[in-house]
Amino acid sequence: MRELMIHLHESSPKYKQIYLSIRLLIENKELQPNTKLPSIRQLAEILHVSRNTTLVAYEQLLAEGYIRSEQKRGYFVETFESVDIHTPTLHAEKYISEETNIKVDFRAGSVDQHAFPLKAWKQCVNEVSKDGIVYMYGEQQGDRLLREKIALYLLQSRGIRTSADSIVIGSSTQQLLMNLSFILKKEYSSIAVENPGYDGARAVFHLNGFQINPIEVKEKGLCMKQLEHTDSKLVYITPSHQFPTGVTLPIAERLKILKWAHSQNGYIIEDDYDSEFRYQQQPIPALLSIQQEARVIYISTFSKAFLPSIRLSYMVLPSELLDQYHQQFATFEQTASSIHQRTMARFMERGHWDSHIRKMRATYKRKMHALVSSLNFSFGNAISIIGPQSGLYILIQLQSSDSEERLIQLASDLGVKVYPTSHLFIGNHPQEPMLQLGFSNLSIDEIQQGVQLLKKAWMIN
Amino acid sequence: MRELMIHLHESSPKYKQIYLSIRLLIENKELQPNTKLPSIRQLAEILHVSRNTTLVAYEQLLAEGYIRSEQKRGYFVETFESVDIHTPTLHAEKYISEETNIKVDFRAGSVDQHAFPLKAWKQCVNEVSKDGIVYMYGEQQGDRLLREKIALYLLQSRGIRTSADSIVIGSSTQQLLMNLSFILKKEYSSIAVENPGYDGARAVFHLNGFQINPIEVKEKGLCMKQLEHTDSKLVYITPSHQFPTGVTLPIAERLKILKWAHSQNGYIIEDDYDSEFRYQQQPIPALLSIQQEARVIYISTFSKAFLPSIRLSYMVLPSELLDQYHQQFATFEQTASSIHQRTMARFMERGHWDSHIRKMRATYKRKMHALVSSLNFSFGNAISIIGPQSGLYILIQLQSSDSEERLIQLASDLGVKVYPTSHLFIGNHPQEPMLQLGFSNLSIDEIQQGVQLLKKAWMIN
Repeated sequence: MRELMIHLHESSPKYKQIYLSIRLLIENKELQPNTKLPSIRQLAEILHVSRNTTLVAYEQLLAEGYIRSEQKRGYFVETFESVDIHTPTLHAEKYISEETNIKVDFRAGSVDQHAFPLKAWKQCVNEVSKDGIVYMYGEQQGDRLLREKIALYLLQSRGIRTSADSIVIGSSTQQLLMNLSFILKKEYSSIAVENPGYDGARAVFHLNGFQINPIEVKEKGLCMKQLEHTDSKLVYITPSHQFPTGVTLPIAERLKILKWAHSQNGYIIEDDYDSEFRYQQQPIPALLSIQQEARVIYISTFSKAFLPSIRLSYMVLPSELLDQYHQQFATFEQTASSIHQRTMARFMERGHWDSHIRKMRATYKRKMHALVSSLNFSFGNAISIIGPQSGLYILIQLQSSDSEERLIQLASDLGVKVYPTSHLFIGNHPQEPMLQLGFSNLSIDEIQQGVQLLKKAWMIN
Repeated sequence: MRELMIHLHESSPKYKQIYLSIRLLIENKELQPNTKLPSIRQLAEILHVSRNTTLVAYEQLLAEGYIRSEQKRGYFVETFESVDIHTPTLHAEKYISEETNIKVDFRAGSVDQHAFPLKAWKQCVNEVSKDGIVYMYGEQQGDRLLREKIALYLLQSRGIRTSADSIVIGSSTQQLLMNLSFILKKEYSSIAVENPGYDGARAVFHLNGFQINPIEVKEKGLCMKQLEHTDSKLVYITPSHQFPTGVTLPIAERLKILKWAHSQNGYIIEDDYDSEFRYQQQPIPALLSIQQEARVIYISTFSKAFLPSIRLSYMVLPSELLDQYHQQFATFEQTASSIHQRTMARFMERGHWDSHIRKMRATYKRKMHALVSSLNFSFGNAISIIGPQSGLYILIQLQSSDSEERLIQLASDLGVKVYPTSHLFIGNHPQEPMLQLGFSNLSIDEIQQGVQLLKKAWMIN
């Protein structure tokens, strides 16, 4: 118990200081796994705070999986799979070393390799390998069992009432947007998109001949006034976690955009790509959950919350579009692997999916915290951090006269890879360069090492 | 040796009668695995034929894997995995029983479940599960390792000289044709297709706004004269095994069409979907192998020769189109699973692919033979069989006044599922109904049972 040296002096609430101090001790291995912690009462006495304060701190640590409570025995430091030991396989190493000597790659879009439930997944893979579906073409709309599991998940986690019949599975969000475009372009000729926004979606709309109306993203998300002034009746948005700015569309704006879609006889394409990962609040209800019969096409993916390599996405189609989909794509084979689909269905059925999401939320929250703390510590006021409340990446904006390209090059020279954002803007991009830093497949050590190298790279100027 | 009762009385060549008789005894288990066969000399004496005749019969049986030769010991019945015991899993059963009580489903497009090299595949799956690529987005153009293996395979088996750089992987032939259409429609507005032909390809071209020019398929394949009279500069063909008629485009016609594409500055899209399965001749060289710098886009798939459930296809793009592909699809994620891609690469690397193809060729040849023999036996002159030299299905044409729909219904009433072909024709389809029968996932018993039921179903009239 002597090891537990906590000094309360910061300005944040006391319970938060306690929580953060203990977390840091656990993360730095100063508190070893299975160490017994002082009781709520003992800790309150040591620190001269109320028992309620220590209780709240412990509850937060419990919720995030740092500590566990054993009946009648008290609180213990949890054993969790270390996210600090990073042992990439030969192939991953080869992949990384292809581009100079990158030591830390802040690439968004990989997932945590060490927290992955490989055993549970393999069990499901083995089970499915005995299934006759392996030897056949799959259902056109996607594996029915998976669609049922997705419908249940959408109800429980996103408040969306739908059924397997309305869900269409595809091999990527872009592939689904492609099919959707073929349906929508018969009636609509232009589409509004967020600016900045996901270039991959824009590319699909562009290829399909849509006129693209960029709408500015402000503090409250998409600017409704601008949207109302375009001639678009379609809009593609990422309301839960705007890509790339991280803004969440507030409920008032959500209601406005739903109303707009109705009055226009248009559609909202709601891309909910990583809503699983919110660290400071409950997940925001999906647009589609707010209104029955909403003119919303909901799209999501397993790439962020599970694995990008299995290529699994899905969309929920309103009945009118579903009819058109059936007509237009009757002779089209499903593009997603039916082996992966059925495996994912079993994985969800067994409850692995829910515990995976909970675990990853805690893991990624720790990493996000490490990244933000390190950046604040190293750069202070010279940096603005955009979007640290959710998702698997942040944006940073530097007070620097250097160009985006130059900053990326300087970082790369010291072995750190950071990513541009200018391609996400239509027209002018911000004067101060804005960079994207993902962290999902980095350990906390690597994150800290990466930030230190960035400081070295960029402070030379 | 007493068991070997062969009576020679038919009109076909003697060696063939001997070969067929022994094969039937093996297939019906009247000759058990590892039974020693009479020597070539002994058999010749028993049957009063020349030694050369028995030699040729044995060689044929050897080549097809029914018997083996052991040095200095003689000939023995081969042990091969029984294709007669069909034990579909619960799920497969459920799948089938959804539609009334189907006992025998002559569905094309499934693959043989019993001959599948599950163990070797699982080893590769396990190996890949340790690979860092599992946790990342894959390469846009497809896994490089797989593209290298495909390039090697295309050289060895199809005579095509290409490299990994020119190969684009996708999740289905239709998905590749979709991307290709976006490139080609900038320059071309119409495309010629085979009639009858693959409706799934037509649907892609139709969706992309191409005018479609149907060209008749005759005994020598696509009618060149008709092609030359259209305004199309693009043509989509299946030259090795025309879908659905099974015709092989002769070399003279191949040269003509290559010349045509050059003179038009057009392109031939060569869909080589099941060229692995030719039973009476060597595989026909691909169009792309005939000419260097040919104006040919070669497309093939792993769905027929391996598994439809993993969704893996690929195309070889001429350099001009490759540049355009890179420009147009730079921001598009690969749609095929990178886990399946890498697993297939390892499977090919270890030599499993080649032995799988050899084995399946022998297996499917036996099944094709069983189907054709049964049909001939049951229907005699009342039936024409189209395309029994290759592939995983045949067409049958009945001398019947019933419609296609009616024949399918009659069969279904007795628990047999056969498939229509009229949707493969543009405009008029043949007066005599033409049906498609696949056999790949049926046992020889099931095939024979199915044909008997068909006879019962159709002879009532």
